[in-house]
Amino acid sequence: MTKTKIAIIVAGGKGVRMQTDIPKQFIEIQGKPILMHTLEAFQRYDAFIQLILVLPVDQINAWQELCKRHSFSVQHQIVAGGDNRFHSVKNGLEVIPANALVAVHDGVRPLVSTETIARCFEEAEKYGTAIPVIDPVDSIRQITANGSQSVDRTLYKLVQTPQVFDGEMLKKAYGQNFSPLFTDDASVVEALGEEIKLVKGNRENIKITTGFDLELAEILIKSKNMKS
Amino acid sequence: MTKTKIAIIVAGGKGVRMQTDIPKQFIEIQGKPILMHTLEAFQRYDAFIQLILVLPVDQINAWQELCKRHSFSVQHQIVAGGDNRFHSVKNGLEVIPANALVAVHDGVRPLVSTETIARCFEEAEKYGTAIPVIDPVDSIRQITANGSQSVDRTLYKLVQTPQVFDGEMLKKAYGQNFSPLFTDDASVVEALGEEIKLVKGNRENIKITTGFDLELAEILIKSKNMKS
Repeated sequence: MTKTKIAIIVAGGKGVRMQTDIPKQFIEIQGKPILMHTLEAFQRYDAFIQLILVLPVDQINAWQELCKRHSFSVQHQIVAGGDNRFHSVKNGLEVIPANALVAVHDGVRPLVSTETIARCFEEAEKYGTAIPVIDPVDSIRQITANGSQSVDRTLYKLVQTPQVFDGEMLKKAYGQNFSPLFTDDASVVEALGEEIKLVKGNRENIKITTGFDLELAEILIKSKNMKS
Repeated sequence: MTKTKIAIIVAGGKGVRMQTDIPKQFIEIQGKPILMHTLEAFQRYDAFIQLILVLPVDQINAWQELCKRHSFSVQHQIVAGGDNRFHSVKNGLEVIPANALVAVHDGVRPLVSTETIARCFEEAEKYGTAIPVIDPVDSIRQITANGSQSVDRTLYKLVQTPQVFDGEMLKKAYGQNFSPLFTDDASVVEALGEEIKLVKGNRENIKITTGFDLELAEILIKSKNMKS
């Protein structure tokens, strides 16, 4: 039996790092909030995917207003977020059905490609886990007690989202106590002893965290719209 | 006595990863080869900096033709490269004067900011070494014997160029036998037992290695030109 495809979009940003009052995910690119671009990317991949949007409680009204104003038609269920990313994902997991494949994706990664989403779901269907990674282009240094040291960059990967998992496995993982080492969903699942399957991400799939990222995302979305 | 400022620009690219016949560094952005943008960045920082350009032997004629065609007026000395980056830098070091501060910079990083170059020279003047780094935005995984594992990304930095060193120290470092672990100049100097001083790089300072990077660099250079 085919599993139900779910995507939990986590949008917890408070705009702190961007030094603006608007939460990052509500900033408009090409006349549309970043978060709408992100939801649309998943709908482009599969028109029937079930979308769960996790938002800070105090942003839910503003989001619903934005949806009205933009006549945003992508169906999604809204869930109130928790104190941090871990608890937000946990809240999202409470509403998923049984026998699901669940993608967890950063709300501020609007440039994920259809191919990346597809690769993650395909591999997670086979292996139970799949996350998109890319090779670092730059050299990498590790901070040490005495300063820092060069490390072999071919042994490292940069991790993106969506991170896709078997639904039951993911729920079990998020049943664990929170640890500050949980920086993404893979690290939570890994703490169960599960192996994480790595698949190819796409370079454009940046996480918008600084003004530079925002400029870059604007340019990339503009050029994508011109091509299509 | 103030040390002489030198920048060795290493341009060894064969265009392999870009799947084009034109060497990466000769590809034009806004009507000008990438390498000219790079040399200009150093001249903007200091009009009197001595520029040494290390080029593969079989590209020197083509480069000189390009300089004529573009009436390129930034003074620089050309040195023939070696079999790999290590030997190319080594060749460049043979022509530097005594009592110098030497920056080594990738020819395909045209977007280095004046501020980044300045920070590196200032700190290297004090400490003998300085390299620009930025924080990774994404989670990082390390490849292991059995698969991969999540690591604490706050312990890692992504390394850029220019990497600036006391000239005598750098020459001594490049007197060592080549090791495949030498991925940048810092790793070569570090093998002497020297500590590497880390300074803030700039996010735009990307190394152009893929078609995506090229598109990105075009956009960034275009928007910079519009502002200035």
